[in-house]
Amino acid sequence: MKYKAEVLVQLKEEVLDTQGKAVAGSLKRLGYDEPSVRVGKYILLELDSPDLPSAEKTVHSMCKDLLVNAIIEEYSVKLEESR
Amino acid sequence: MKYKAEVLVQLKEEVLDTQGKAVAGSLKRLGYDEPSVRVGKYILLELDSPDLPSAEKTVHSMCKDLLVNAIIEEYSVKLEESR
Repeated sequence: MKYKAEVLVQLKEEVLDTQGKAVAGSLKRLGYDEPSVRVGKYILLELDSPDLPSAEKTVHSMCKDLLVNAIIEEYSVKLEESR
Repeated sequence: MKYKAEVLVQLKEEVLDTQGKAVAGSLKRLGYDEPSVRVGKYILLELDSPDLPSAEKTVHSMCKDLLVNAIIEEYSVKLEESR
């Protein structure tokens, strides 16, 4: 069965988001009231798995092994069957 | 009033996602069945605005001016009042 996982990866609250600061500064120079900006990664995965629990397990394992740096990042996963 | 906007920026379907390919290849080398992977940006904005429609207009304008390269990227916006 095919599953689609949407993984949102963000820097932890206490970590300085230099990219976010840079984007906020550029928006200010473009004339906007300076918003607060945090930039993260949006990863869309499509994988084969026998069932939902094992798909979930695989995605979390992929996050742990490669997609997320657990020291400075946190993540959330939205998983559904691919249509 | 404070508003929170979640902007998801992705490469258009027809654009080759080299970053996604690299991540998929690394997952394969780690022993996973090679998933299809697309990597995009997740941008969290907090901005002041008199009301929801003008907050929406501002965020789309920020996307057009800076956050999204409309030639190769597409985006979606989720907007709500900050609690």
